[in-house]
Amino acid sequence: MTPFPYRHLLLAADFAPETEGVVARAAELRAHLRARLTLLHVVEYLPMSYSGDLVLPEDFDLEQELVEVAKRQMAALGERLDVPPGDRRIETGSTGRTILRVAEEIGADLIVLGSHGRHGLAALLGSTARSVLNGAKCDVLAVRLGVE
Amino acid sequence: MTPFPYRHLLLAADFAPETEGVVARAAELRAHLRARLTLLHVVEYLPMSYSGDLVLPEDFDLEQELVEVAKRQMAALGERLDVPPGDRRIETGSTGRTILRVAEEIGADLIVLGSHGRHGLAALLGSTARSVLNGAKCDVLAVRLGVE
Repeated sequence: MTPFPYRHLLLAADFAPETEGVVARAAELRAHLRARLTLLHVVEYLPMSYSGDLVLPEDFDLEQELVEVAKRQMAALGERLDVPPGDRRIETGSTGRTILRVAEEIGADLIVLGSHGRHGLAALLGSTARSVLNGAKCDVLAVRLGVE
Repeated sequence: MTPFPYRHLLLAADFAPETEGVVARAAELRAHLRARLTLLHVVEYLPMSYSGDLVLPEDFDLEQELVEVAKRQMAALGERLDVPPGDRRIETGSTGRTILRVAEEIGADLIVLGSHGRHGLAALLGSTARSVLNGAKCDVLAVRLGVE
């Protein structure tokens, strides 16, 4: 038998229902390749121009709130996929750069992420996929999302 | 056991020694996922501005010569990977668009190709990978090449 091509997968997860296909692919690959799976969710820094328009209570830390929400979603995803807590990561920063940084830190040999079309959220996902593709030192699996 | 995530892989092969890692990845994945593997090599149309500067014998059809060379290389690769002749394809045209067209024709669910850095041949491979990523209706595996 040929050697297993990948030993450590990094799944960039955003918890959106429309990216469930990406999660399913990563889980299937992990099972068939008997690989380790690390889950990563990136909380993007809010652009200042946008966050300045929000009316927020004083002492309300939006980024921290987003991280708290992400922690709950990550816990649920990790339980569902049977990924141990040590392999569930939440980071803040630029999505593309953070995926690349974590991939190197953990020695991932395959980054799994969603790739998409040209409109709205789709375009954003596509641009993250391209930036990861350009910068990655390991292989990248771009999973096509079902919605256009 | 989870279902096999991919049933039909399309490998974009260019026969260059430095892309041997891409071939190896596709072969490993095929074995572990028990998938069908189709090999595709694209002979790019030569840009007219370039071919006009070549001094060629009359009646010499450069594109046809390139296709003949590709046929021999494809036969060798197909034998080595045990891919039946019906799953070995040589096409002429734009690399990115041809990969996308053949992927749809054969119903591939994963396109496997090389992805690379920013210099010379590397940049060219990278731009093909990006154009395939943008246009593909199926998943795309970009295999990082060892050389920069």
